[in-house]
Amino acid sequence: MQIAERMKGVSGSAIRELFKLLGDPAIISFGGGNPSKACFPKEEIRQITDDLLREKSDILLQYGATEGYMPLRRAYLDYILPSNGLHGELENVLALTGSMQGLDLLCKAVINPGDVVLVEEPSFLGALQTFHVAQAKLVTVPLHEDGLHVDELEAIVKEHHPVMFYTIPTFQNPSGYVTGVEARKAIARLAAEYDMLVIEDDPYASLRFTGEKLPTIKSFDTSDNVIVLTSFSKTISPGLRVALCYGNKELIRKMTIAKQGSDTHSPNLNQAIVAEFINRGMMDKHIEFISGVYAKSAGVMIDAMNEYFPEFVKYQAPVGGLFIWCTLPEGWDAEDLFRRAVERKVAFVPGAPFHTNEGAGKNTFRLNFSAEPEERIREGIKRLGELIREMAAEK
Amino acid sequence: MQIAERMKGVSGSAIRELFKLLGDPAIISFGGGNPSKACFPKEEIRQITDDLLREKSDILLQYGATEGYMPLRRAYLDYILPSNGLHGELENVLALTGSMQGLDLLCKAVINPGDVVLVEEPSFLGALQTFHVAQAKLVTVPLHEDGLHVDELEAIVKEHHPVMFYTIPTFQNPSGYVTGVEARKAIARLAAEYDMLVIEDDPYASLRFTGEKLPTIKSFDTSDNVIVLTSFSKTISPGLRVALCYGNKELIRKMTIAKQGSDTHSPNLNQAIVAEFINRGMMDKHIEFISGVYAKSAGVMIDAMNEYFPEFVKYQAPVGGLFIWCTLPEGWDAEDLFRRAVERKVAFVPGAPFHTNEGAGKNTFRLNFSAEPEERIREGIKRLGELIREMAAEK
Repeated sequence: MQIAERMKGVSGSAIRELFKLLGDPAIISFGGGNPSKACFPKEEIRQITDDLLREKSDILLQYGATEGYMPLRRAYLDYILPSNGLHGELENVLALTGSMQGLDLLCKAVINPGDVVLVEEPSFLGALQTFHVAQAKLVTVPLHEDGLHVDELEAIVKEHHPVMFYTIPTFQNPSGYVTGVEARKAIARLAAEYDMLVIEDDPYASLRFTGEKLPTIKSFDTSDNVIVLTSFSKTISPGLRVALCYGNKELIRKMTIAKQGSDTHSPNLNQAIVAEFINRGMMDKHIEFISGVYAKSAGVMIDAMNEYFPEFVKYQAPVGGLFIWCTLPEGWDAEDLFRRAVERKVAFVPGAPFHTNEGAGKNTFRLNFSAEPEERIREGIKRLGELIREMAAEK
Repeated sequence: MQIAERMKGVSGSAIRELFKLLGDPAIISFGGGNPSKACFPKEEIRQITDDLLREKSDILLQYGATEGYMPLRRAYLDYILPSNGLHGELENVLALTGSMQGLDLLCKAVINPGDVVLVEEPSFLGALQTFHVAQAKLVTVPLHEDGLHVDELEAIVKEHHPVMFYTIPTFQNPSGYVTGVEARKAIARLAAEYDMLVIEDDPYASLRFTGEKLPTIKSFDTSDNVIVLTSFSKTISPGLRVALCYGNKELIRKMTIAKQGSDTHSPNLNQAIVAEFINRGMMDKHIEFISGVYAKSAGVMIDAMNEYFPEFVKYQAPVGGLFIWCTLPEGWDAEDLFRRAVERKVAFVPGAPFHTNEGAGKNTFRLNFSAEPEERIREGIKRLGELIREMAAEK
């Protein structure tokens, strides 16, 4: 049986594989990017769904438009985009079956094999896999604790002329880092100067614990080269698989054609649930609630890390998002730590798969603080800290 | 802005564009492949969904496995496959966001640009578009009123050595034709002899009005080269976007990796609704009910066609599925007919887009009988018949 060239060397997502471990409820999981089940608006979704299936079954159970369920596209234009200082028309908007699909459709619509795609180092490994399958040539720009550095970015863009730049500017996955306003302006400027498409993937931005929301890269976009991916996976529910993208009309049209051949259209009921959730005015209050929950969990994890981790483990207290990024001393391998942690029923994600460059990030790992209750966060961090100390003593 | 090579010359689905017309309720639509809204098990779905969201929200709203929601995969293995004489294990099964996604994932996993894919002439235009975007080289085998002819198929396979053959053996889209048992056996034999992957897409098979169910191609498969796509779009609801595929474990694994980068996983709630529908024993009775409804609609349409269409329009009374395929005399252009029909508020799909070969099928068109009530079927066919007679008189 033939296997396509594009699949060679693609072994599957380390995180997806990790999910299989999560079946064991004894494992304290800091892996994945799962929202807390305590943060799902369960009763609201149940009530909305029941109303929808009583009133709109004929439409919702039928085939729908590839562009998306109209009330969801409208709610995005009328509420979500303006709340981020953005304004568009229907032709700027496409509904997605999760924002990963946006990356897949962008690759289909834009990328030829061998094209240069610029990514942050480290970056979301699901995105990296999608770009690999698209046979893009990946080039990296380093991501720092204070986000992207304009001089580094400009030099790399100038040298490599990437067709596309994939960035998660706020509470990045895996690092949790935030790219500053000046760098955001610079990205928009470079998009115009080098006719570079910028994918602004922003699923964590609304999960802010403190400080003011930063303007989007798209808000500085003068060349219509910035495309925004908006996910509801971290705010409402990942299991519903509802996301949207917003950008250049011609590109949205090409993505729509690509989507016809990907899944025909996204499920109507799921889109309608999210549209109703927005239209019933439930978003702001819910986001305030879950941001509070995650801020508390992050605090618990940081306090535990300060107590139990040796000082040589480096990390930053998060101001939003779902992740804390940890760096062990040079020469450590976080995969060794991972294997031994799983024996002690603690899981996280080793950092290497988030890196594009060979051998990079072996001494890093990602902790997620949103999926476990407080006492398990403390217990898991305690076990990890003890293990790290033991491994240090063995060295 | 760059557009990928694969998208050049892909203009989007004629059927998807047609959907935009359907917003006008005055239009009698024989286009699309929409099930009747009278055939959605609305109250069952509402009740199941409410139960699921009361009992399993924590799981259903969370991220799920790329392979699919376990109870759905089990229901497929325990009930759906055995009812088609097939048996497999979990590793043979992948859940899909609609069966179109199966084609997309198969292309990603198997097809390199320039590879030969064999398709029926005519065939489902959504599939043709997916293969075009995959930059496959399409080769055709003629489909006849009695299905595929073994001698033709064997000669073409021998000459072109296709990597993949895409077939809809039962109540084919667009033709409604059925490929016989001997040809099914021959397809399985050719799959083994030429190491050819066969995609057996069978969304209409259970909508049988009369006669015995035919064995699947997969049931004759000795080389594990036949992959089955099973859709619930025609039996339960297309808007839910739930399908499954069943086949070779290695291929399913590669498709699963491709799916990680396509939509991460299919929505859990939707998969759970279908699983519950199956597990509550509702499938058989529901399929019996809707097959009866569609048989009646097909009868109404055929009676009206016999009454209103001139004799030079050729068609076959369907024994299942959703479509009647019509052939006008040579020299006619069904797109002309389409444009004038829409002015009279009747829509259907011209046949040319279902054809791969340049200029083929211009005198053909597809009628769908499942989406309109009886009086509108009669009225629409009357208008079409009058229009065809007028156009004949103009020639």
